[in-house]
Formats: sequence, structure tokens, C-alpha cells
Amino acid sequence: MKITFLGTGSGVPAKHRNVSSMALHIDDKESSLWLFDCGEATQHQILHTSLKPRKISKIFITHLHGDHIFGLPGLLSSRSFQGGETPLTVYGPRGIKDYIEISLSVSMTHVKYPLNIVEFDEEGLVLEEEEYRFIGRKLVHGIPSFGFRIEQKELPGALLMDKVRESGIPAGPHYQQLKEGKSIKLADGRIFDGVDYIGPPKKGKIVTILGDTRYNEMSVELAMGADMLVHEATFAAGDELLAHEYFHSTTVQAAKVAKDAGVGQLLLTHISARYQKDDVLVLEKEAREIFPRVKVVEDFDVVEIK
Amino acid sequence: MKITFLGTGSGVPAKHRNVSSMALHIDDKESSLWLFDCGEATQHQILHTSLKPRKISKIFITHLHGDHIFGLPGLLSSRSFQGGETPLTVYGPRGIKDYIEISLSVSMTHVKYPLNIVEFDEEGLVLEEEEYRFIGRKLVHGIPSFGFRIEQKELPGALLMDKVRESGIPAGPHYQQLKEGKSIKLADGRIFDGVDYIGPPKKGKIVTILGDTRYNEMSVELAMGADMLVHEATFAAGDELLAHEYFHSTTVQAAKVAKDAGVGQLLLTHISARYQKDDVLVLEKEAREIFPRVKVVEDFDVVEIK
Repeated sequence: MKITFLGTGSGVPAKHRNVSSMALHIDDKESSLWLFDCGEATQHQILHTSLKPRKISKIFITHLHGDHIFGLPGLLSSRSFQGGETPLTVYGPRGIKDYIEISLSVSMTHVKYPLNIVEFDEEGLVLEEEEYRFIGRKLVHGIPSFGFRIEQKELPGALLMDKVRESGIPAGPHYQQLKEGKSIKLADGRIFDGVDYIGPPKKGKIVTILGDTRYNEMSVELAMGADMLVHEATFAAGDELLAHEYFHSTTVQAAKVAKDAGVGQLLLTHISARYQKDDVLVLEKEAREIFPRVKVVEDFDVVEIK
Repeated sequence: MKITFLGTGSGVPAKHRNVSSMALHIDDKESSLWLFDCGEATQHQILHTSLKPRKISKIFITHLHGDHIFGLPGLLSSRSFQGGETPLTVYGPRGIKDYIEISLSVSMTHVKYPLNIVEFDEEGLVLEEEEYRFIGRKLVHGIPSFGFRIEQKELPGALLMDKVRESGIPAGPHYQQLKEGKSIKLADGRIFDGVDYIGPPKKGKIVTILGDTRYNEMSVELAMGADMLVHEATFAAGDELLAHEYFHSTTVQAAKVAKDAGVGQLLLTHISARYQKDDVLVLEKEAREIFPRVKVVEDFDVVEIK
């Protein structure tokens, strides 16, 4: 699993940081993409990557501020224009359906794929997918803003090749059956049970992606034990009053969430255009004093979830 | 007067051609900008120019297809965020008001300047400004699409300096009064009438900017005698059947409009992404065989209206 950051700025687009969007590469059978937020020109950013809009199967919207949603109508239209035919579901706070439907109907856009729009209210969202569990919970912002926790379910263990060879099982399609835990019978009559040849299941990854928010308890809960936490850092340390007033977080507040939740890695995004390249080093340093494994991400960064 | 082209592509954004938008620099006292269409990421394109969103006083929408309007909510929001306080009026076909109002209300965007939205129906639009006459008329497209003719009113003549000197009028604030056609009385009692010292009025410029359209008579009418005609050329010569089917024009059809209307200069835009750099030279050549003063414009081209 990895994340491609498509927009890491806040509020308005700047030359080197577009407004919010990121793509989570889901390691499932369809190798599909889940998009989180879709600020204006997200489809333009995608043009500069190897991502394909038709690969996006789900879009999650953290909240309805324009810098997180104004790229949706264009992306949905272009996905159709470029031949996307597989279903797409957009999940977002109440209001997202009106926004998408009016935008598409006024512009006479008829997408050629099944488009589902799922609205959630302040209670949030829980999805049980075959390979993932998805939890959305409300954070603390000027308008309802949500944080998402994606838990990959346990992955089956690897085939224990040493043991397979010790048992003298010849190479062939049997291996795949053993790996799937099935029982096999060889031509010589010997029978082996897959469960004896599979290692312990691997723990799935946990990723937490939070929308715009003040420092709050729910953030810690959603991030508890996550391998990766993506948190906004609109302001520098010392600007706690500003952050509070505008319902945002500072670098240090984000780092505290990462520390309290014991996450593996912290990525800071939603950086205000007031911070230039050199300032960003300072932002990262401020957070690192609280939580060492931190990075301020930039547009087009691709980060592996370890 | 001049035009800055912000998006010269069609349908979907491409790396080197964004979707439709252009800014007309109006030579009036406020040196304000009139924007024509506002495809997604028009505000991003503006970031790479010296234009300022707060200078935009009017936005005209030719038709409601997404590649001509999906940049509106973002531009309107950012204009406020960046301190724009002067009034802005958006003129567009019926439906534009719903689109803008829903986009702004869902995203909880409250712009800090007076925003007026003027819808017009299939009859079109006529505006009488102090210095301009503006006519919008329906063309022939899949949905109502309009062409606009902007007629700059007669400009007052220049002060005839040779005659002023011959009459022995001393330099000073008198000159400005004479230029405005006023009567002046000098300290020595002599009286001069401004009308005697002003040259003949100068003819104003005429610019015609057409939305997406099939070849049709109204285009010629709107462009008659214009100094500059901006016309779409989605298809190459020979693709007349495709152009007809999709309600667009070929290079040659656009050139015929320019020729029949006797315009000064023809600019071709709305170029399909199927045409690469070399193809564009061919497109221009096709049109030039019919009408010599033609240019296929590119994003960020600035063209003076002579």
C-alpha cells in the first residue's frame, strides 16, 4: 500500500501546492485507487502521474469546503470521457449529493459508468469490505469534517517453502492449492493438508487519514496503532491561537496526535501557502521534536506504508 | 485592448492545453478584465500570469458544458480569499445561477464582494455600458451556446497640439479641459473652445468571441466587420461530418466565417487534444488558405486587438 499526494496545500491553490487530494493505492485484486478529497484541478495533477482516473473505485470526501471538493465534477466527467466504465462510489458528508448532481445536470454531463453517491451524517461511516474495514468519525472543524481509519484485514500467511521441500512435494500447481489452505493428493497417493504448510497470518496495514481539524481526542482514537497517519498542519508551532480560531492544527499538535496514538509514521499535509520551501524544513523540525518519524509531504510525493 | 488565453483546449484538460477560458483586457478607467468562460483550473492558469482575480469585473459564460464552467466556484472563492472587494457580475445561460449558488452554499463559501448573477435565455443578451455595447446571440450547439460581440464606443479625438500652439495657448491644466471639449478663459481674458482643438473621434474596436458552435449564419452576423474574431476549431478540415455530429466547427468553417464577416484577425481556439504540436501547424495552414490573418492560439498567448 502507498499514497500518492496530489494536493498538499490549504485553502487556495498555489504554484507548487495544489488544494487537497491524495490517492491510496489499495492492494486488492483490482489494484484500484481510493481517492481522499478532490480539490480543483485534481484531474490536472493526475495528468502528471501514472494514475488513471478509471482506476479510482472510491472517493472519500472529508468535508465540503471548496478546496476539498471543487475538482469532483471535472474528475467524474473526464473519467467517463476517457472510457472509465467500472462503478465508482463517492462517500461524503450530507450535501455532497446535491453538489455533484446539480453540477452534472446543469452541465448536461452523463457519465457512462455506474456512479453511486453515499452521504453520511454526523454519526460517520462504517464500511465492511472483503479485505478492508473502514471507519469514518467526526473531528472538530468549522463544518462537519471527518477522519478515516482504513484497516486492512489479516493477510493469509506465506507458503513455508522449506517445509514443502522437506516433505518432498514436487513443484507444480499443488503449491497454489497448498497456499490457499487446501488439501492435495499427489499421483503417488500421498495426501497433504495446506494448513500444515502456511505460516502465521500477516497483520494488515492500518492507515488513518484525517480531514481538517482542531487538535482533539477523536483524532487519537482513529489513529491508534496506525502504520501511517496523514494529518493536516495548516499552522506552525506557536500559532495555536490562530489554529484554534480557524479550526486547524499546528505541526506540534499533529505530532502530539501521532505520539499519543503510537503510529508508525506521520505525514503532514494541508500546508498554508504562507510557508515557503525553507519554512517547510522548520515545520518538519518542530514536529520532529515531538514525534521523530515525520515528513511534510509535497505534491506528487509517493509514500509507501510500511 | 488585448486577450490573454488561459485555456485553449476542448472537452478535457491536457498537459499543455487547459479547458476554455480567456481574459479580455478592457481599456477603460478601471483597467478591468472580462473573463469569457471559466473551465476547471482557470484560477491555476491565472497564477502563471500577471492577472489578478480581483481585477475581473465581469465573467461571461458561453454555455454550460463542464469544460467551460467547472472553474467558476473556485475562482469566485479565491477572489474573495485573496481580498477582492469590488463587485463581480457573472452572465450566463439559464442554469448558471443554480450551479454557482449550490456550489457556494454546499461548500459554505461566503464571498466578501457583491456577486451578481445574470441569467439570459435563448433570446440572448444586450448590455449598454458607458464605453461598450455588448451583444450575445445564440449559436448552434448541442445545448444553448452563445456568441458575444463587444463594440467599444467611439473614443474622443486627440488634442490637436499644433493648433493649440499656433493659438498661443500656454501649457497647463487648460490642456486637459480643452481635451474634454470644455471652454477655457485664460488670465489675459482670451477665450478658447475645446471643440475647436479636438481631432475627429476614433472608431472603437470590435471583438467577437463565439462559444462552441456548428458553422452557422449568426456567427457571421456577430463577427461582421470585427477587428478580431475568436472562433472554435475543434476539428481539422475534412472532418466536417464529425464537426456536424458533435455540433463543432472545423478550421475551414471558422475561416469561412472570418472571411464572410470581413474581420481583421481570426484566432482559433478549443483545439482537440488529438492534435499535437505539429498538427497544429497543419490546422493553421488549412484555415490560412481561406483566410490569411489567422493564428491557432495556445495557453498563455496574449494577443493585441489592432
